[in-house]
Amino acid sequence: MTAWMERPSMAEALKERRRRLAALVERPAVLWSGQSIGRNYPANTYPFRANSHFLYFAGVPLEGAAIRLDSGKLELFLDEPGPAHALWHGEVPGREAVATFVGADAAYPLAELGARATGAATLPATDTTTRAGQTQLLERTLPASHELDRADRALAEAVIVLRLSHDEAALGELRRAAAVSVVAHQAGMRVTPKAKYESEVRAAMEGVIIANRMATAYGSIVTVHGEVLHNEQYHHTLTPGDLLLADVGAESELGWASDITRTWPVSGRYSPTQRAIYDIVLAAHDACIASMKPGVEYRDLHLLACAVMAAGLVDLGILRGKPEDLVERDVHALFFPHGIGHLLGLDVHDMEDLGDLAGYAPGRERSERFGLGYLRLNRPLAAGMLVTIEPGFYQVPVLFGDPLNREKYADAVNWERLGQFADVRGIRIEDDVLVTETGTEVLTAALPTRAEAIESLVLAGA
Amino acid sequence: MTAWMERPSMAEALKERRRRLAALVERPAVLWSGQSIGRNYPANTYPFRANSHFLYFAGVPLEGAAIRLDSGKLELFLDEPGPAHALWHGEVPGREAVATFVGADAAYPLAELGARATGAATLPATDTTTRAGQTQLLERTLPASHELDRADRALAEAVIVLRLSHDEAALGELRRAAAVSVVAHQAGMRVTPKAKYESEVRAAMEGVIIANRMATAYGSIVTVHGEVLHNEQYHHTLTPGDLLLADVGAESELGWASDITRTWPVSGRYSPTQRAIYDIVLAAHDACIASMKPGVEYRDLHLLACAVMAAGLVDLGILRGKPEDLVERDVHALFFPHGIGHLLGLDVHDMEDLGDLAGYAPGRERSERFGLGYLRLNRPLAAGMLVTIEPGFYQVPVLFGDPLNREKYADAVNWERLGQFADVRGIRIEDDVLVTETGTEVLTAALPTRAEAIESLVLAGA
Ligand SMILES: [Mn+2]
Ligand SMILES: [Mn+2]
Repeated sequence: MTAWMERPSMAEALKERRRRLAALVERPAVLWSGQSIGRNYPANTYPFRANSHFLYFAGVPLEGAAIRLDSGKLELFLDEPGPAHALWHGEVPGREAVATFVGADAAYPLAELGARATGAATLPATDTTTRAGQTQLLERTLPASHELDRADRALAEAVIVLRLSHDEAALGELRRAAAVSVVAHQAGMRVTPKAKYESEVRAAMEGVIIANRMATAYGSIVTVHGEVLHNEQYHHTLTPGDLLLADVGAESELGWASDITRTWPVSGRYSPTQRAIYDIVLAAHDACIASMKPGVEYRDLHLLACAVMAAGLVDLGILRGKPEDLVERDVHALFFPHGIGHLLGLDVHDMEDLGDLAGYAPGRERSERFGLGYLRLNRPLAAGMLVTIEPGFYQVPVLFGDPLNREKYADAVNWERLGQFADVRGIRIEDDVLVTETGTEVLTAALPTRAEAIESLVLAGA
Repeated sequence: MTAWMERPSMAEALKERRRRLAALVERPAVLWSGQSIGRNYPANTYPFRANSHFLYFAGVPLEGAAIRLDSGKLELFLDEPGPAHALWHGEVPGREAVATFVGADAAYPLAELGARATGAATLPATDTTTRAGQTQLLERTLPASHELDRADRALAEAVIVLRLSHDEAALGELRRAAAVSVVAHQAGMRVTPKAKYESEVRAAMEGVIIANRMATAYGSIVTVHGEVLHNEQYHHTLTPGDLLLADVGAESELGWASDITRTWPVSGRYSPTQRAIYDIVLAAHDACIASMKPGVEYRDLHLLACAVMAAGLVDLGILRGKPEDLVERDVHALFFPHGIGHLLGLDVHDMEDLGDLAGYAPGRERSERFGLGYLRLNRPLAAGMLVTIEPGFYQVPVLFGDPLNREKYADAVNWERLGQFADVRGIRIEDDVLVTETGTEVLTAALPTRAEAIESLVLAGA
């Protein structure tokens, strides 16, 4: 039996989501779950991941299914498994069992969808085969998912309203994913003193996720070269003076993500220079979380993190000037060239398939500024919104080595002083923070952030 | 630096492959590596896997690259990484460095490919985006990869000749993948006595693969329900009387696969009934390997395995009649409803993207027989060919419970006697066997197959 059938039914929560959607859009919507994708040949597929918009309303990761949402009703379109299916893949729940589990008002074979999809709005599926099917069935071309228009765009905007604010069913899943990710990080820290390669730490962390029957929500980053922001390499050896940066998050069986980064010393002890920078990054992290509540602009959190880090770097003698001036001039972005975080939900960058439609409030656009252009979220916080807070400090050769930057920031950066911090290549501290009516709930709070606590966890494995 | 750049260069082997190809086809060939595929949104991709035909001639998993093969020469088409690439993904080798590493005779930006691709044969890429690009660039429609015609089919047939016979460079990779898979299985056995869920064993096994910087060559099967042939579920609890079937294989960084199955007792001791059936499956496994040498028909190995298992089941009183008659009537397929194995190489079912063109010798087709139709390989063995040998015994409800089967095989099966073997749901024993000039080399021989040896490995973890 499929694992998710053993979970409590989300039917009531799904019904409420449909009710909220019906209050925002009049036109029926059809959403497709998608198909699994061949890796090296069609039958050798990547693990199937259902489309997130589908998952939000259908609840469970059905493959090759569609749903129609109309006035709060849910119609499920799903074919019964063929006769060879049970031999090769075992018994799976049939259409009626799934319909009952998800609280569908009606259920049909996929062949019925054509007749019932006329005039429906939709959101593009992830895989191209399913997208081609959407186009054919709806008898119209479908723009790219970040360029939707008319009814599809109206549907996207309504879905964004819903998905921006997590209900209790979603939070239950998000907390489960966070809890497993916390254990994964603890396992990674503990295995580090005996590990020779980055890959062994990664294996310990992903092993926890697999053992808990979850998936990685994104490609794990486990590296002593944290200065490479999305470092997918993990073949480097670990040496005692290194910092290991691990950005690893689990995704629950129903598709809900977590996203945690910690940076720990391979030896179990931060060097004084590493510790000094670590505490600056942590100060930025803590300042952001302390100031979060409904109404606060996420962009202001980003600027707050920049200011806290700039002030810390001035104190260390690495930067010169007033922190606010340094941030104004984007000096912080030499060290912190990404945004303070992003939305989190069914996607690790939630709803990024829709471009900036979810991340940016209506009328707002990406900044041209070097220090702001990478910001993925620019909205006022609201209760129910889940975001990451992930300040970092990186010594990136392509930024530091750039003669234009060296000249432009000659007065602001004490390059000689910075040279004394060569053992700090990359530090990031990332938590998943839910905005509540009164402030925040840090879903990943069970994983320590303080340097001493991290050291203890690593040394426990020595 | 990219991990594969630290491996020894395969340039000489690649040159020899090109030379062999040039002896078989006159027309130039262009092969694409493919692009990574979005999982839930475009930027959150599945781990990239380059197309296997590309890998065979280019050696390394370049993303978004193409090669042109003409008269033994290799031209590489690859764009230099853009300016933001180093910030996010780190320094990667540039076009010239890659060209030197793989022994290319010339290297160009991708934009040059159009002018040089005219009239070339090709094989379809795996991902649809790349396939669309192929169609556009070659200015012709491309059939599905199992329905190729004209020059493309001639190219496919030549590539099959090459890939059917593994050279030393390939064997080096295949042995590395096999060695890691062996360690993974040992780890899985050792962790079993303390594991509560299938998923924990799976985690231990895949952890070994990740720690060794390899990938799983296919979706792992780790289950107490081995009777479901491709069971992708792994949430069941382990109980002492269960057999755990694990079909898990690693794929090397350069894309070469292994494929191992073992079936071990959760308690560390096979029950007498489990042991009796295990030894029958093992006898079939050993008989096949013992009779392998160039010239032997793979189909005859399949029939040999069927006959050995039928004889064993007659001895146990589960079947009645002469083994050869039982096989003739497909009675074996009630218990063994798949083929004895398949080709193994860059793909776990090697070259299955080409349909049966690689697996079936020219002029041969799939049998209509229930007991032979699932056979993926029907060729005479030849030196250099790598195949799996994977006999199995399964009690599949949809086969056993089928009243037609019950009636058809009423005289042949002693259902009452079979009922005494209810604790044997599924057993498979699979090894990777290279055909040599004089016989075989079992690449996975380091992992024991004898029941007592398996029991010792499991009990070592108790
Ligand atoms: Mn993040
Ligand atoms: Mn196999």
